[in-house]
Amino acid sequence: MSVYIDPAVAGHLRGFEMPERLGFGTVMAPVMFRAVCQDGCWSGGELVPYAPLALDPAAKVLHYAQSCFEGMKAYRTLGGGVSLFRPERNAARMAHSAERLCMPAVPESLFMEGVRTITAYCANLVPASSGESLYLRPFLIGTQPDLAVSASTSYEFYVIASPSAAYHAGHMRLWVEREDSRAAVGGTGDAKVGGNYAASLLSISRLKARGYDQSLWLNPGNRHTVDELSGMNFFAVMEGELHTPRLNGSILEGITRDSLIQLADALGYTVHERDIDIDDLLALVKSGTCSEAFACGTAAIVSPVSLLGDGEQQYELAQVPGPVAEHLRQSLLDIQEGRAEDRFGWMEAVEPVTT
Amino acid sequence: MSVYIDPAVAGHLRGFEMPERLGFGTVMAPVMFRAVCQDGCWSGGELVPYAPLALDPAAKVLHYAQSCFEGMKAYRTLGGGVSLFRPERNAARMAHSAERLCMPAVPESLFMEGVRTITAYCANLVPASSGESLYLRPFLIGTQPDLAVSASTSYEFYVIASPSAAYHAGHMRLWVEREDSRAAVGGTGDAKVGGNYAASLLSISRLKARGYDQSLWLNPGNRHTVDELSGMNFFAVMEGELHTPRLNGSILEGITRDSLIQLADALGYTVHERDIDIDDLLALVKSGTCSEAFACGTAAIVSPVSLLGDGEQQYELAQVPGPVAEHLRQSLLDIQEGRAEDRFGWMEAVEPVTT
Repeated sequence: MSVYIDPAVAGHLRGFEMPERLGFGTVMAPVMFRAVCQDGCWSGGELVPYAPLALDPAAKVLHYAQSCFEGMKAYRTLGGGVSLFRPERNAARMAHSAERLCMPAVPESLFMEGVRTITAYCANLVPASSGESLYLRPFLIGTQPDLAVSASTSYEFYVIASPSAAYHAGHMRLWVEREDSRAAVGGTGDAKVGGNYAASLLSISRLKARGYDQSLWLNPGNRHTVDELSGMNFFAVMEGELHTPRLNGSILEGITRDSLIQLADALGYTVHERDIDIDDLLALVKSGTCSEAFACGTAAIVSPVSLLGDGEQQYELAQVPGPVAEHLRQSLLDIQEGRAEDRFGWMEAVEPVTT
Repeated sequence: MSVYIDPAVAGHLRGFEMPERLGFGTVMAPVMFRAVCQDGCWSGGELVPYAPLALDPAAKVLHYAQSCFEGMKAYRTLGGGVSLFRPERNAARMAHSAERLCMPAVPESLFMEGVRTITAYCANLVPASSGESLYLRPFLIGTQPDLAVSASTSYEFYVIASPSAAYHAGHMRLWVEREDSRAAVGGTGDAKVGGNYAASLLSISRLKARGYDQSLWLNPGNRHTVDELSGMNFFAVMEGELHTPRLNGSILEGITRDSLIQLADALGYTVHERDIDIDDLLALVKSGTCSEAFACGTAAIVSPVSLLGDGEQQYELAQVPGPVAEHLRQSLLDIQEGRAEDRFGWMEAVEPVTT
């Protein structure tokens, strides 16, 4: 690799003490990967100590939300190695997100260099218990100091890393969100950009006050088919078959979603990618035909849904956690943690660097 | 005022040299106003030298776009004074925007202290030619370093200022945007938040390649009534009467829009706030019944529209600039620059502070 390694990196890594309690995305590794882009030309990557960014107060990202990001994990595998999970899919999705906001794509080679370098240098920070991981957060921001509403001419790309405990979303109570939208038809719903998350915060705050955990977002065009949760995709299990919303342009194409579809197919499940009408779904939960439901994403992998709330009505899932969700979760985690054969070629081992 | 004035402010102001060419929002005043909010408690305000912000790489604003802003101007008035235009309206709108993204409102007293203080200290930087101004940009960002998708526990509020030339949008060629949306129904369209602007960049980039200047956004719910431009509201003039889209929840409530409605009414024009069907509008432009159209906003005040483009069709406005737009523009500017009586009580004089 041609990455510049700041001489201070070694000392920062040696001086880092892993806290007893990790949480998820709260403890930060003491180094970060960085590259800059000026007028379309990318600099080489650097591994530097984790430190505050110096951003001009007029930087575009602070005013016009020109930012996109990825979430991915490095896993400790059986035998002690460290592997990334389908990192090239994150690179491709980030390029798509960048394009949606008129940002230059981070070249795949630079993206891969970033996630591999920080993982290699932080290999000792990848926790070893099942479900734990080094969570990686690549992100790209527009930094030009100029108040005109236009695309930035300068960008910074970072990869930061967080040694994280297993993310237990618990048995999730979902609120059917019939008022707010997380993204518009013809908007940014299929891109991983900050604005989608900002728009979702108010709904989450309202539903938490009612005892729920997450919003179940409906399609903003028709207002009656299921899209996704904020940051997780949705699956329902009906008579042993899997149903998940098709990619309709307002849903983020989850990498865990795609992996579960492939895995479920290989395990003999039938998977339907289709429009799921919310009223039909609620009726099927009520009748018991829909026996389980779950959400999936990089952080929690698979999280069972226990309840769907719609206004004054509540619809309880019969099986929490359900056997299909449990089967898929364990099968995926077995691949990610190296206990099962990597039949899909999803894992990429990273050679640790000792400093 | 109880604002803390950093001792370095005086030197920075004295050392500032006004460039010959100002542009709009590109030259920054050498000082900025700042206040911080931790767990709901606001600090006192400070006037400090303009300098890069130190933001943790995991700060919420960089990942989840938890940011909102305002745009407003301090005007040099006849006789040499300096006045703000309806600043309490910006304070109220920013409070609304903050609420939409689960951010604490900047208290009105703090907001007003911020815009008054920076204006008072930068009074010498308010340019004197008609149409020029000191553009003020208050903004609020979530700064908590934590990768969870949730509202920040810490915030920073800034007011930065830019001595600016008159903003000439020119005779604008608008592209009827039938594919993309800037905000969803139930989204953030009526809040001044970064995500709306990020979502609009791709459309603007496409239409500029076709020789247009701005997108004319349609309502994301019905896809056939006019909403607004990115950052400007829309007016059409039909047989001497004004028509502008009603506030429907996905339109930003422009302060210039509101001012023009009041002013037009006082000047004897009839103003209709209503749903404007895009196909009806295009037909009325073609027949000449709609003789002029214009956009309005803080930066450009009033900008005439010369052309509406819809796919392969182009619809030219008969009067560019039209007499109604010119009349309203000059009448508003006369109030803002102190040449006409402030009959609505819109102007607030600011006493300069000499350092």
